[in-house]
Amino acid sequence: MSDATDALRFVKGHGTQNDFVVLADPAAELGLDAARVAAICDRQRGIGADGLLRVSRAVALVERGVLDALPAGVRPDDWFMDYRNADGSIAEMCGNGVRVFAHYVRATGLVDTDTFTVGSRAGARPVIIHSHDQVRADVTVTMGQARVDGRSQATVGDTTYHGAVIDVGNPHLACVVPDLTAEQLAGIDFSAGVGLDAGVFPHGANLELVTPARPGGDGPDGTTVDFSAHMRVFERGVGETRSCGTGLVAAGKASLGALGRDTGSLHITVPGGSVLVTVDPDGATLRGPSVLVAEGRFRPGWSDEG
Amino acid sequence: MSDATDALRFVKGHGTQNDFVVLADPAAELGLDAARVAAICDRQRGIGADGLLRVSRAVALVERGVLDALPAGVRPDDWFMDYRNADGSIAEMCGNGVRVFAHYVRATGLVDTDTFTVGSRAGARPVIIHSHDQVRADVTVTMGQARVDGRSQATVGDTTYHGAVIDVGNPHLACVVPDLTAEQLAGIDFSAGVGLDAGVFPHGANLELVTPARPGGDGPDGTTVDFSAHMRVFERGVGETRSCGTGLVAAGKASLGALGRDTGSLHITVPGGSVLVTVDPDGATLRGPSVLVAEGRFRPGWSDEG
Repeated sequence: MSDATDALRFVKGHGTQNDFVVLADPAAELGLDAARVAAICDRQRGIGADGLLRVSRAVALVERGVLDALPAGVRPDDWFMDYRNADGSIAEMCGNGVRVFAHYVRATGLVDTDTFTVGSRAGARPVIIHSHDQVRADVTVTMGQARVDGRSQATVGDTTYHGAVIDVGNPHLACVVPDLTAEQLAGIDFSAGVGLDAGVFPHGANLELVTPARPGGDGPDGTTVDFSAHMRVFERGVGETRSCGTGLVAAGKASLGALGRDTGSLHITVPGGSVLVTVDPDGATLRGPSVLVAEGRFRPGWSDEG
Repeated sequence: MSDATDALRFVKGHGTQNDFVVLADPAAELGLDAARVAAICDRQRGIGADGLLRVSRAVALVERGVLDALPAGVRPDDWFMDYRNADGSIAEMCGNGVRVFAHYVRATGLVDTDTFTVGSRAGARPVIIHSHDQVRADVTVTMGQARVDGRSQATVGDTTYHGAVIDVGNPHLACVVPDLTAEQLAGIDFSAGVGLDAGVFPHGANLELVTPARPGGDGPDGTTVDFSAHMRVFERGVGETRSCGTGLVAAGKASLGALGRDTGSLHITVPGGSVLVTVDPDGATLRGPSVLVAEGRFRPGWSDEG
């Protein structure tokens, strides 16, 4: 496998500690099969990341056959986030990944405006870069509609949690737990896994446990927000993670729903940091940080064996 | 914390998938407190590694007060492996780390011979570089004496394993399991942890489970070895890892002991690869691969927050 990816340059970054290897590949020339992606994302053998973000022109991915066609709203010249999970499989969207992707294309000068559209397999994702330098950025991503579809429950250890079934492009059970404090939330033991209702979630779901929203809180740029809450997330197929973009949107939707509200803004703190979730009639947005930690280059032949 | 470490260059490498961030710091000028090391080794926030290898002249570490004095056999001009665990704490030695360290100093030209001494807190460690390029090397490391000190047992799930208590600078329980096949070994479930005898191991120990040694096997450079075996290791404070240098020595010692032998060579396969363990009256050596995967540079200010 000695192709152009062998000496490839990369950037490592994270959004609320959901971390990514970013590969610049405007013309979609890299041979990124599942084995190569898995080797790059392998934390011992490669650089390691939760996922890989290939930065390509949308049109190039169509011309190369990576995409069958341009997804809804994506224009040929848009920068497209070709997202891969750490195991090499394809995911349609990643809310934290879009922030890091948008930061990368803005900081490298691939775009020269603060509002633009990122292409994804789930469709066009408008973004706003509120501030950025080569290391840090503050980014809002349009996440689309979150749909509530009834209620269900989950077991964690000996405890049963009740919550809202929410579709954010992927399935969630978001449980606002009455009287739960941030300290109690931090003490919940996920080590034995999570039990979901397979009748409701035949393909599994992400579970969010959320403290009841308190009024007010600090927003970005000295503003205030409607509510504040704490959340932890247990992702299907992965286990607990430090942050999950769609999970944050699901938690925001459930928190507002528990208050009898359809819209509002929440400052939500996860183990990996804090973000601002805003739900309005047009859909949800997620505003939060991106950090570009380091840049580097793979040595030619690094993944040939071992 | 905007000091020289902020824009620091690094190399990422691994030895049988025990992985390291290597920092060149000949004059020991970097401020490597525990928090900084932990941030670098954090797999989401930093680059991520099992440990950090600072490459400094031994004398510089003494002059800077990192070392109180030169450890046994270490000369002032030796390159010294200032090893840090991922949590920022100090470890005396790491058998897989020494191979990567030796590869790094040889491949970068810091040494220009194939036999030299690496300094470590456990004393001087002679090494032989059998082959190397900028990506791969084949390295033998002198590991010192492995001392057998009676027997004990461990529980893994519902099964009790019996084995030899072995000191390789750190404590091990190495269990050669009668009739165990490589396939059966691969199927053992460590997810519920490991139970050791706290009377024998008041500070815990690493557990090695090993298949019975079979005669013969392929050694390096077309040679043959006395025996072959498979091993898995569960490290104290960490959980299962893909390889452990001292654990491989303990497993080799226990395998030979089970055959009534004091000396011999074994080709041992772990989840992260294969190594050659040789035990003779002078002590044990470990021969195996090193891979330097990538090199890079942290962006200034990357760890200031979040």
